Parts: sequence; structure tokens; C-alpha cells
Amino acid sequence: MPRQITAFSNPLVKSVRLLREKRHRREQKRFLAEGLRILTEAMDAGRIPETIFFAAESAAHPLVRRLVAAVEGRGGEAVETTRDILHKLSGKDNPQTVLGVYAEFALPLAALDRASAPIWLVAQSLRDPGNLGTILRTGDAVGAGGLILIDECVDPFSVEAVRASMGALFTQTIATAAWPDFIAWLRSGPGQLVGMSLDTDHDYQGPRYAAPTFLLVGNEAQGLPPAYAAECDLLVKMPMLGRADSLNAAVAMAVMAYEVLNQRRHA
Amino acid sequence: MPRQITAFSNPLVKSVRLLREKRHRREQKRFLAEGLRILTEAMDAGRIPETIFFAAESAAHPLVRRLVAAVEGRGGEAVETTRDILHKLSGKDNPQTVLGVYAEFALPLAALDRASAPIWLVAQSLRDPGNLGTILRTGDAVGAGGLILIDECVDPFSVEAVRASMGALFTQTIATAAWPDFIAWLRSGPGQLVGMSLDTDHDYQGPRYAAPTFLLVGNEAQGLPPAYAAECDLLVKMPMLGRADSLNAAVAMAVMAYEVLNQRRHA
Repeated sequence: MPRQITAFSNPLVKSVRLLREKRHRREQKRFLAEGLRILTEAMDAGRIPETIFFAAESAAHPLVRRLVAAVEGRGGEAVETTRDILHKLSGKDNPQTVLGVYAEFALPLAALDRASAPIWLVAQSLRDPGNLGTILRTGDAVGAGGLILIDECVDPFSVEAVRASMGALFTQTIATAAWPDFIAWLRSGPGQLVGMSLDTDHDYQGPRYAAPTFLLVGNEAQGLPPAYAAECDLLVKMPMLGRADSLNAAVAMAVMAYEVLNQRRHA
Repeated sequence: MPRQITAFSNPLVKSVRLLREKRHRREQKRFLAEGLRILTEAMDAGRIPETIFFAAESAAHPLVRRLVAAVEGRGGEAVETTRDILHKLSGKDNPQTVLGVYAEFALPLAALDRASAPIWLVAQSLRDPGNLGTILRTGDAVGAGGLILIDECVDPFSVEAVRASMGALFTQTIATAAWPDFIAWLRSGPGQLVGMSLDTDHDYQGPRYAAPTFLLVGNEAQGLPPAYAAECDLLVKMPMLGRADSLNAAVAMAVMAYEVLNQRRHA
């Protein structure tokens, strides 16, 4: 049976609200996701929240009932609450009708099975949560094994990144690593590391990519550090006919990932 | 000679600050862009601000001096000011050292020369300024003729869209139109209208695209309205292997635009 919370001062409300801050996500090892569509996609990918909040007026919605049953079936807690409290929890003027609290699930590199997928996405010092979420969606679409975050990236469990991923966060494996550890792990098995760089003349459609292909994009403003670029098996670049001479990092990753996918499906 | 402004109450500061709001941009027919890199790229594309604000400590920077000379050479005004006022104008905690006020330059469709480029990008009811700016960067990279905005899109001259475009706003032609006017204009000359849709089985790599190709992407949440999709010459879709079954709108546009560009350069 869902319990009802209508008081802002409720300790659970207070603790969940703190999850909008990175420090508290790290301490609690939990994060927030909102929206019926995203929570349902997460459930379909096997990710059930530990706690679910839903607006009283949406209690009868069939998807809300499925979510509540799944949460309670796993020993989690379902909380019926008010729009005002959902607004307070989500920080949005127009809050979604459901909000879930999930255990974080970033893995160490050693837990990845590189043979499980032909494409892996790797981002270094990515700063923008929208870009991170967008890259997760692309990873889902191209059948990537997951996203490996190198050095200090934006938090993939931030509210903004979760939103931008539109549920793909839950279908993708996420690992974090410092660069030397990533390179040591990468070289301990098969895999081709392909860096996207403006400092190369190699057209991205030139090479035939070998599986598993690790596609590496650098920081939005700086690109890849030269020392990192030097450790790639290949550096490639999309043709750029314009004056600005750069692409958004998530766009470059997607154009590259579709090239690799297209080579595979036409081979 | 630059004039100096150090008072928040200065009328010019007040009026420029209002440009962060859409209503005032429309009234004044002006918008803001910030940052030495973006203002320099704009200048190289022939776009000179009517007014430029720069921090006193960057007055000696060669690019700032070039910008100031260009503005004054066109009869515009250069204003040396404080970091605090730049912060107030830009709304950023860490303001750029230069900020320009530009005349808006969106065109009616009739002013476009469709034969001037083989690819045109078209977005309908796009809501996210980051997506709009990202699409402008992609348009610059693939040599698009410009971006046509259909129905109620986010303002391309909003501070967020200008930022996300990384200067590409100034290299791209922008036009706005309601859908019936766009279709009437499109059908008055050559051009293939290709819509991206989830409701089709046509793989985006199947067709050979005809120039000029007009690539159409719909609203982030709803996609294209069925009635609009029905007026396209082709509907196509990228393969999606995952569970989420959608791509970010700016990513879909980029993957599609590179397909068209690749067909042209390998033909």
C-alpha cells in the first residue's frame, strides 16, 4: 500500500530533494528520474526505483499502477503525494506526475564485457549534461555496449543529464575511469580506439573499423589533449565545409557512431 | 574613441540588458552575442555589431582592437566597461570579455536563393535553444544554405541559441515561415523535401537525394505532425537498435545531413 505524504517537512521529502545536488547523490549513491515515459522505459530495461513518488490524481493510471506494483514487489516504497511536493522535488515549474529514486549504477571498467557489443562510446571531460544525455540516446540507438566517462565529466546522474537521455540512461552501461586506467584496460584485450580530432586529415569514412570500436570524443571546448590523441589507434575528422570548423561533441559522436554502424550493417 | 560606461543606471546598459528577453528583442530588432571567438567569427562572416561592450582590461587585445575598429568604422559604438556591467548584461557568472549588439537578420522565404546550396535544413516547432544552435553548427559544417524555422520555434536570437551555435548563427541564413507558406514557396521551384520520421520503414541510406535537398525535423517531443509528414517527398528513418527508439532532434538532423553530404562528395 502506498503511503501518503503531504508535508514539505517530511524527512523523506527533504532527503530526496537533496539528490538534485551532486554531493548528496554521491553520499546517498542515489539519483532522480522523472516522468512516466522515462520511468516506464527504465522498468522495461529492468531498472526499478527504490522509491517512487506519484501525484494522487495519477494513481489510477495503468502505467503508474504497474510502476507502483513493481516497486512494492521489490520491497521498495511507493509514495502518493501532492503536485506541490513533486514540484519541490523536481525543481520544475511543471513537474511530471511520477518521480523515482534509483540506486546509482556506474561500473568500474573491469566489470565491462567488451565483447558484448561492437561499438563503445567514450567521452573525456565532457561538461554539458545535455550532451551527455544525447550521447546516451545515440548509444542506445546504435547498439553501443555503453558509455565510458574519462577524467572529470559532468555527472551522468544529474537531473539534467537524466532528462536529456530520455530513458537511454537506463539501457546503457556506464563506466568511469581515469585516462591511464582506461588505456591499461583497453590494451588488455581487443579493441580499436578511434579519436575524433580537428588536428588530422583522415576522413572518418576512410577506415574500415574493427570491432569492438571505441569512439572517443573530447571536451567541448578543448577537444582531446594531444597526449591522449597520440594514444589513439586512429584519429579521424568529419568533413567541415563551413567557417566555424567544429561540430557539437554529441553530434560528432553520433555521425561517427552511425558510420561504424553503417559499415557493419552493409558488410 | 570608445566611450566609458561604469554606471549600472546608464540607459544604454539598461536597454541592452533587456535584450535577454524575447519581447524586447522583437521590439528593438536586435540581439546579443558574447565572447571574443564568436564575435570574431561573426566579423569574419561580415557581421559587425552595432554596439560592442568590452572589459577595460581586454582593451589591448589585438582581436578586441580589430572588433572595435570594425564597429567604429561602420559608425557603431564601442563601449569600454567593467566586468560587473558585462556580468549584468550577459547574465553569466563568468562573463566573456566582449559582448556585441547585432541587428536581427531573419529573412522571409522569398529572399532565399535555393540554388545557392545543395542542402537546406528545416526545423518545425523546435523548442530547445541548444538544439537550434547545434543545428546551425551542423548547417555550417555541411555547407547548408541556411536554416528555415517553421511555425513556433525557439528564438534563434536567444542568448542560449546564439551560445550553442558557437558562431555558426552568423554564417547561416535564417528564415522563418508558417507551414502553408513554406510549402507554397518550396513547390514554386526545384527541391526535394525529406522528413525524418519514426513512422516509416524507409532507411535513410536508401534514397539517392536530389539537390537542393530540404531536410525536415519536427518538434523534440511530438515529431512531425502527420499532415506535414504527408506533404514530404520522402520520409526516412535512421536504424535504431535500442529500446528508446528515438534520437535527439539535432543528432537526427546531423546524421541525415552528413548522409546527403557524403552522397554528394562520393558521387
